[in-house]
Amino acid sequence: MTAYQTLEQRFSRLAALEGAAGILGWDAQTLMPDGAAEARGDQLAILRGLAHEILTAPETRDELAAAERQGGLDAWNAANLREMRRAQAHAGAVPRDLVEASSRAVSRSEMVWREARRDSDFARLAPYLAEVLRLQREIGQAKGAALGLDPYDALLDSYDPGMRRAVIDPLFADLTSWLPDLIARAREIQAARPAPLPLAGPFDTGTQRALGLKLMTALGFDFTRGRLDISLHPFCGGATDDVRITTRYDEADFGRALMGVLHETGHALYEQGRPAAWRHQPVGAARGMSLHESQSLIVEMQACRSRAFFTYLAPLLREAFGRSGPEWSPENLHALNTQVRPGFIRVDADEATYPAHILLRYRLETAMIAGDLAIADLPDAFNEGLRDLLGLTVPEDRLGCLQDIHWPSGAFGYFPTYTLGALAAAQLFRAAQAAEPALPGCLAAGDFAPLRTWLRANVHEVGSLLGTDDLLVRATGAPLGTAAFRAHLEGRYLGG
Amino acid sequence: MTAYQTLEQRFSRLAALEGAAGILGWDAQTLMPDGAAEARGDQLAILRGLAHEILTAPETRDELAAAERQGGLDAWNAANLREMRRAQAHAGAVPRDLVEASSRAVSRSEMVWREARRDSDFARLAPYLAEVLRLQREIGQAKGAALGLDPYDALLDSYDPGMRRAVIDPLFADLTSWLPDLIARAREIQAARPAPLPLAGPFDTGTQRALGLKLMTALGFDFTRGRLDISLHPFCGGATDDVRITTRYDEADFGRALMGVLHETGHALYEQGRPAAWRHQPVGAARGMSLHESQSLIVEMQACRSRAFFTYLAPLLREAFGRSGPEWSPENLHALNTQVRPGFIRVDADEATYPAHILLRYRLETAMIAGDLAIADLPDAFNEGLRDLLGLTVPEDRLGCLQDIHWPSGAFGYFPTYTLGALAAAQLFRAAQAAEPALPGCLAAGDFAPLRTWLRANVHEVGSLLGTDDLLVRATGAPLGTAAFRAHLEGRYLGG
Repeated sequence: MTAYQTLEQRFSRLAALEGAAGILGWDAQTLMPDGAAEARGDQLAILRGLAHEILTAPETRDELAAAERQGGLDAWNAANLREMRRAQAHAGAVPRDLVEASSRAVSRSEMVWREARRDSDFARLAPYLAEVLRLQREIGQAKGAALGLDPYDALLDSYDPGMRRAVIDPLFADLTSWLPDLIARAREIQAARPAPLPLAGPFDTGTQRALGLKLMTALGFDFTRGRLDISLHPFCGGATDDVRITTRYDEADFGRALMGVLHETGHALYEQGRPAAWRHQPVGAARGMSLHESQSLIVEMQACRSRAFFTYLAPLLREAFGRSGPEWSPENLHALNTQVRPGFIRVDADEATYPAHILLRYRLETAMIAGDLAIADLPDAFNEGLRDLLGLTVPEDRLGCLQDIHWPSGAFGYFPTYTLGALAAAQLFRAAQAAEPALPGCLAAGDFAPLRTWLRANVHEVGSLLGTDDLLVRATGAPLGTAAFRAHLEGRYLGG
Repeated sequence: MTAYQTLEQRFSRLAALEGAAGILGWDAQTLMPDGAAEARGDQLAILRGLAHEILTAPETRDELAAAERQGGLDAWNAANLREMRRAQAHAGAVPRDLVEASSRAVSRSEMVWREARRDSDFARLAPYLAEVLRLQREIGQAKGAALGLDPYDALLDSYDPGMRRAVIDPLFADLTSWLPDLIARAREIQAARPAPLPLAGPFDTGTQRALGLKLMTALGFDFTRGRLDISLHPFCGGATDDVRITTRYDEADFGRALMGVLHETGHALYEQGRPAAWRHQPVGAARGMSLHESQSLIVEMQACRSRAFFTYLAPLLREAFGRSGPEWSPENLHALNTQVRPGFIRVDADEATYPAHILLRYRLETAMIAGDLAIADLPDAFNEGLRDLLGLTVPEDRLGCLQDIHWPSGAFGYFPTYTLGALAAAQLFRAAQAAEPALPGCLAAGDFAPLRTWLRANVHEVGSLLGTDDLLVRATGAPLGTAAFRAHLEGRYLGG
């Protein structure tokens, strides 16, 4: 066996370990009894520790060097070797003790976060979050030193390979230059129109779930290789061939769970559409979190908030909930689902104000990693930032810095990918429409096949063969930019 | 750190790996989508392979030798070291490739078994089962050679430390000498009495679940460290601090799910009652499957089919299902739940005919491991045996050799522990009643505390400090025998 073939075996074993951790992590957020938190933390820590041990073993290092010397690989195998090296470089930079300590600290703080958020009690979370941050800063410094990056870029790179602050800062600066004005104009136009008619609940949660399953099926979710469940913080997780998305139901408002399901289904289609022949190898992985978010937003924001989609959805809703009346017209449903309204909760934000939530978190987490913002000062800094950016006064931390699981989970460097994903989604959807002029008509008929087919070929089945910008250039003709996102917002909200 | 302390660390990491596999195994039987079977098989195989690697590492072997040389440990630590050595001896006897191959073969055959059982299609399962048997025979031979046991005893020893065919054969021979006559006399007495009144369904499965949860609570199940879910084949699984039992609901008959929940709760109480200070160490584990089954049967058969228990249960049932009438009297419910009636399905068998199902499986699996019975001949041998032992003619394999998951799971050497557990349950319950004369009155009041307290002290909290017979001698004054079981059956079924 060549060194490269040995590496393929080793990395398919790693994929199995990561899959095991994926299911255990899903279980911890959906079903696990509270008393199991400590034991589950130990289980995840040892799995991550063992994966780290395999990645950083001298044999792995030697095989990588040998395989790189030997060369002679085709494009996919060469990209696979490149991704193996990337994984090893990230892992090799962090001592195993630090990996396991961080995994344990995260498991503890995630459990405490659930109670702290419920009780809006930041003080309860603070010591656990401080420990998570301390360990993430150590990891960032260690990776930065090894990869020749500053600590934040090093953390960012583990979520979005190749992404850098130097790329983000100008994109976010550009957004900052025109988005506030666009929001203001959109709200004026909105205010001048008659308000959309509200939908009166309650909406049976069983019916909401059935409706979600129906739309997942229409979108092409493969239920022989995935599930839909419930968790406090919706996510897409699980493992290869076992993609599990979650949502939470609100009897008073079905839209939140429904749009959440559509969003997570976009993530799931990416996972289920990864190149089958490579699904246990690094090159078969999704390219990064920015492109991952682009797949959720292309479904939720681009396709499923379009006028066309609501002509398909309206009769489904009327039938499912046994309602009728003008408030259930496609036009009214579209108006309800394209309101621009600054709010406290990121996951409930409309697509125009959403970037402000990300700009704030990006500003705060870069400061925390740099050591310029202490956990004790986080609530004030968060609340001040939301006042500056959206003119909102946070009444309690539950609606402020306690709302997201990301920081308690140690996911520093993740937030910017949400807005980078929104930019990529607009750019990809514009290219898909150019390639498939019939797209709007298909969406109006509930036919997602043309969009899914285009995404399969241009994103999903590319796996990690290409870098994010190379993929975008091949699929859209340009690297990541703000133009398509701006045109999309202007078209939808300024009646362009 | 001493060699022993290093071993303690190593084995707590092993416990975490086993816990991870426990949750993934539970998920595979409850929630996992079918398409994930192959990937889950890989996940479980690598976890078992890594555990095997840790157990058989030269360092582990050297530390064991060093710790045994050093000695000077108190009773618990000495027993812990003894159990570490036991685990290492079992693992060290089997090459890692064989462990992983067996794990994969089992994952595949378990999935096929579900469909084969549903369609009563033994031919579909046969090749997978043959492969599982081939690997189990290899494992039995390898362990036998290393431990100085015959292959079947070696497999048996991994489920029930110290148990041997030489112990089982005389016990089973004794049962065979009087049980058929007892069954015949019990059925005559039964036939002479008016038949118990049937309970007319349907019985809402949600109500059945709520009732199960209520009884689990009364029995002392800790829901902060466990769950109740649904699976085709009820079991007690999960991990430390996360004990998960399952059942299946039948609208036409609530008794099956209810008694199943009581049975699995008995297992769960043992797991939740293991010595807390040792729950991540080998000495903190349950002693073996015979004692484990004794804990499920002491709840289901000894306590919860007693006349006393039905005086507590009857009003709960009437209230839960909103029924009334003479068929809901404690006397009628007791009569319904103590019928002796030979049947095809082991898990539905009454306690008097149950041992016949085990005698048959014991006879067949010892022959299969010895190489005297081929998979192709299993259905005929099974059906012939059920005719001899219970006078029943199996109409389809779904009701015969396809009914149990054990063989497709590679669990050869497990079946006898069910009947050994029934013997131990009767022996322990008699001792508990001698120690707690108020026991029947407490059961009539739904107060399980006295029984639970006695079991905690005499079984659960002993963990693996003592061997099965030493534990029984300490708790009941005698090693495992048939006397208490016979007295119990005569008392309940011959109106003794």
